[in-house]
Amino acid sequence: MAEKIRDIAHVSAVELLTPVLDDTVRFFTDQMAMEVVERRGDSAYLHAWDDYERFTVKITGGNTSGIGRTWLRARSPQALDRRVREIEAAGLGEGWSKDEPGYGPVYHFTDPDGHRFGLYYETQRYVASDATRPSLKNQAARFPGRGSNVRRLDHVNFLAKDVPSDFVPTVLTGRASEQIVLDNGTTAAIWFTFSDKSYDLVYTRDWTGTRGRLHHVAFATDTREDILRAADVFLEAGVHIETGPHKHAIQQTFFLYVWEPGGNRIELCNAGARLLLAPDHEVVTWTEAERAKGQAWGLQTIESFHTHGTPPV
Amino acid sequence: MAEKIRDIAHVSAVELLTPVLDDTVRFFTDQMAMEVVERRGDSAYLHAWDDYERFTVKITGGNTSGIGRTWLRARSPQALDRRVREIEAAGLGEGWSKDEPGYGPVYHFTDPDGHRFGLYYETQRYVASDATRPSLKNQAARFPGRGSNVRRLDHVNFLAKDVPSDFVPTVLTGRASEQIVLDNGTTAAIWFTFSDKSYDLVYTRDWTGTRGRLHHVAFATDTREDILRAADVFLEAGVHIETGPHKHAIQQTFFLYVWEPGGNRIELCNAGARLLLAPDHEVVTWTEAERAKGQAWGLQTIESFHTHGTPPV
Amino acid sequence: MAEKIRDIAHVSAVELLTPVLDDTVRFFTDQMAMEVVERRGDSAYLHAWDDYERFTVKITGGNTSGIGRTWLRARSPQALDRRVREIEAAGLGEGWSKDEPGYGPVYHFTDPDGHRFGLYYETQRYVASDATRPSLKNQAARFPGRGSNVRRLDHVNFLAKDVPSDFVPTVLTGRASEQIVLDNGTTAAIWFTFSDKSYDLVYTRDWTGTRGRLHHVAFATDTREDILRAADVFLEAGVHIETGPHKHAIQQTFFLYVWEPGGNRIELCNAGARLLLAPDHEVVTWTEAERAKGQAWGLQTIESFHTHGTPPV
Amino acid sequence: MAEKIRDIAHVSAVELLTPVLDDTVRFFTDQMAMEVVERRGDSAYLHAWDDYERFTVKITGGNTSGIGRTWLRARSPQALDRRVREIEAAGLGEGWSKDEPGYGPVYHFTDPDGHRFGLYYETQRYVASDATRPSLKNQAARFPGRGSNVRRLDHVNFLAKDVPSDFVPTVLTGRASEQIVLDNGTTAAIWFTFSDKSYDLVYTRDWTGTRGRLHHVAFATDTREDILRAADVFLEAGVHIETGPHKHAIQQTFFLYVWEPGGNRIELCNAGARLLLAPDHEVVTWTEAERAKGQAWGLQTIESFHTHGTPPV
Repeated sequence: MAEKIRDIAHVSAVELLTPVLDDTVRFFTDQMAMEVVERRGDSAYLHAWDDYERFTVKITGGNTSGIGRTWLRARSPQALDRRVREIEAAGLGEGWSKDEPGYGPVYHFTDPDGHRFGLYYETQRYVASDATRPSLKNQAARFPGRGSNVRRLDHVNFLAKDVPSDFVPTVLTGRASEQIVLDNGTTAAIWFTFSDKSYDLVYTRDWTGTRGRLHHVAFATDTREDILRAADVFLEAGVHIETGPHKHAIQQTFFLYVWEPGGNRIELCNAGARLLLAPDHEVVTWTEAERAKGQAWGLQTIESFHTHGTPPV
Repeated sequence: MAEKIRDIAHVSAVELLTPVLDDTVRFFTDQMAMEVVERRGDSAYLHAWDDYERFTVKITGGNTSGIGRTWLRARSPQALDRRVREIEAAGLGEGWSKDEPGYGPVYHFTDPDGHRFGLYYETQRYVASDATRPSLKNQAARFPGRGSNVRRLDHVNFLAKDVPSDFVPTVLTGRASEQIVLDNGTTAAIWFTFSDKSYDLVYTRDWTGTRGRLHHVAFATDTREDILRAADVFLEAGVHIETGPHKHAIQQTFFLYVWEPGGNRIELCNAGARLLLAPDHEVVTWTEAERAKGQAWGLQTIESFHTHGTPPV
Repeated sequence: MAEKIRDIAHVSAVELLTPVLDDTVRFFTDQMAMEVVERRGDSAYLHAWDDYERFTVKITGGNTSGIGRTWLRARSPQALDRRVREIEAAGLGEGWSKDEPGYGPVYHFTDPDGHRFGLYYETQRYVASDATRPSLKNQAARFPGRGSNVRRLDHVNFLAKDVPSDFVPTVLTGRASEQIVLDNGTTAAIWFTFSDKSYDLVYTRDWTGTRGRLHHVAFATDTREDILRAADVFLEAGVHIETGPHKHAIQQTFFLYVWEPGGNRIELCNAGARLLLAPDHEVVTWTEAERAKGQAWGLQTIESFHTHGTPPV
Repeated sequence: MAEKIRDIAHVSAVELLTPVLDDTVRFFTDQMAMEVVERRGDSAYLHAWDDYERFTVKITGGNTSGIGRTWLRARSPQALDRRVREIEAAGLGEGWSKDEPGYGPVYHFTDPDGHRFGLYYETQRYVASDATRPSLKNQAARFPGRGSNVRRLDHVNFLAKDVPSDFVPTVLTGRASEQIVLDNGTTAAIWFTFSDKSYDLVYTRDWTGTRGRLHHVAFATDTREDILRAADVFLEAGVHIETGPHKHAIQQTFFLYVWEPGGNRIELCNAGARLLLAPDHEVVTWTEAERAKGQAWGLQTIESFHTHGTPPV
């Protein structure tokens, strides 16, 4: 059996599109406790306090909401080369770019559904200023003590006209960890991991049949209590809380979903000490009947979870 | 630059030696919420509730305390072959064994300090009984709701006459994440990782100059609150609480140290959402002066932390 | 203005009726971490670990579910005398009883809706056995480290044909803290306190027009995390989780509702550091429109919350 | 037996003296999440988010640190009258004042050790501004989502040349809940409560034999996690963390002690669901031997706890 390799180290950053740039930036600084590290044209780059790289989220103002580019860091220069060859072989490559402020050469491509990606190896470390220098040198920036205090980007959940079951494993060396398979045999959602986390990239079937949309972007907190506190923070800030806090049955993540002012769904998540350490993990398949039971503690999945994606269609 | 590989998936189990077998087993079942899955001669095998493999801890009764074998799971059959070749090349190999109940062929070896290891790829999945079958099929066993509810093995911290800085990276493909370097240039302790966790295997210099001893074995809880609750559990059970709960400066782990009845130091630890995702992480070095500041929130390191190891000498 | 007095120290215990005595007792021992301290005929008496009195819950087997007697401890012998006089003046007295194992003379009465009460001053302290003796002498019994670890009884929520707004303040010296007043001017629910907690006794209008029924009995945990953990415990034990964990808008209590095997609704609740310290607190009134917003973080009130009471009708 | 009454509703506010007014105010706004509601001369008045009254802490700049006045709210006008008579009878009265911005007439007095008090009934409610108006109308001000997020004042711990065992019960109708009695029979510390909390006012013997000093002022958080988070906040802000987080054996409070920039010791505390509901509680007495065991989970009491009080002597 061919040896499986892991060429992607982690999902490193995402670009969110918003029709209300200032409001979205304020959401990420005030409620999500991030720091604006750079502004360029209609974009602001923000850093979550324990991200070792220069930025975690790029916010770009425009006509509508949705997700722009998702950046992946390759595990090595060699891994980057291998993946670029596979992407090109799959006919999904778009070529090299040097546009972003935090990265070396970035290879641009799309997944089969049209979501845009950037893959790179060379990166700039976040460098703390006097105002953000941490007391303990083994963390990137000062603990903010503000809002939800999210530590880092956790995962991205795309909507896709057709859930691409093969693309991530074959082209990107991801592994499927859990999935929903409908009674008619089609895959409704699939969770992929590049790391020892149990998921990094999720595809959910888009009920509208549209391509390239976003279900949500998720950020990790250190504790479930951080998420309970964040719920109060969002309540006071007038941020729309869609559902939660509760615990997912799938992946068992403790979650809270809100909509940032631009309309994009944002998740706060905590996995506890749960990791997927088995190198030969077999995908866990959930049936329609199992999904009908709701979340782990019985919460029924909220209707808007199946009707709200960005950009709206 | 040669591409770095990661051939070890994770530290999978440890064997603890104890002069009071029944008491130590009771500690692991009652306070550590594990299940006895097998008994063989003077040994009991115990399973932590979210370990996908058959056992997490092997307890062996005998004359004294200390650590027996530490098991590592290779990431693939090919990875296993590569590591065995390197171990043999280093002159540390002991040959293959099929003695353990949960594993396929295990390659036995020692580190340069004499700690015993077993490396394998083939393994048995934990199979739940009616009494331990979980409600959610994506976890190994039922959540115990008992004692400290530790989820899984987290790391092993050895004492060593000489801290082996090269062995783990070179022979086992581990990466150093943090270390203590004394003013005289010697390494007092070094933290290695095989995974995306920030450490899996730690070596601390043995002040007695003895080889092969144990500082502690650590188990992960989902939350810091689990550790606070565990402190009450240990207090009521008469288990010796050595230090904590508090937060380490190095690695920033929230910790609690107790001594199980056989004398071995056991840590409960929680890392929050902290992971070491950078594939090119540079080791963080702590100086004597920095260490003198104590733990993250100022707790001075307790004296017994530098005088108690097992077996006693 | 006449000086307000507080003659009731606290709600001390409740009697729950169940058609499945053994199952209900097992729920209270295994999931609710209580200890059976006495059995008499068809009744079992159970003690929550930090209750200074002999019992917290009396479980009585029979044909159906519901609430039996609710016990209140008077603040002093003089307070007991005053309240008995007022109860008798209100025509609700039933006379003195010495039937219960933990109390001195108990005065039996009902509220206007027919819920049965016992009021007393003399009581027996809980006396720990070797098995339940705590390490710290300022708590009643050993911390169980089991299931939901509820610390003490928190409050009782009755269903009533007509919400008795005057009875509790006038006859029992309780104070209303919050209430729901419908658009037609009727009171749909009212929260009363005897203590510095913000509520001890709640009346909700019974949609069936029946008298004397129970909405739920609530027990306090030390932390919200205890409640999150309890949700896992209930899930694994097959206990029906009705709704939660979430945070109430009214009273802001963090809650989880389950149905014990006999059908009675049980709440686990945590108020954080919230107390009602103002001696001249003005009742907070919630309108229908405000209630329609759901719970604090937006959870819609579950339908069964308005249709399930015990005994069933 | 004469009926015990409770004429004091709660400890409502404290005045802290500081040689560095601006720094101390910044500590209370940034790390303690309070709001400056008024400035008068060298004083700033600050409000904790769930205090129903206008201010929680008065900070007064001057030459040194220490505690100014401690305010107590009487339970009723009649209770105020009764207490003033008793204070005058004890020869400790100083007369009426109308100086403070939030109160009606305040009766000034001292305890036998010279600590200054103010007792009143009439008070102003905190009125939220647009910036501080909460989403839920049953809380005083918006949840800050900043720093330690303390909810309210919890207790004051005085140092006293002689611990006044009789003054609080006799003159102020407090009840002793726990105490330390040395082997020579003298009381080293005593915890008093006016409410259902297990303590509101504490006296510890001053090792220097000085009168009128402060050991610490404590503020309550909703969870223990809030306190763990606060430790990170204090660490990053350069606030001196003296000891903790840990759990006291006496009163079992989860604690963290820091020194605000002016030198006064500030405690963050959480009692979980622990209340002292028994109206006939018998004081728990701790011996020297019991105290020597350290805190609940074994932490030894830090030396400065016995040497640092304010003002310094």
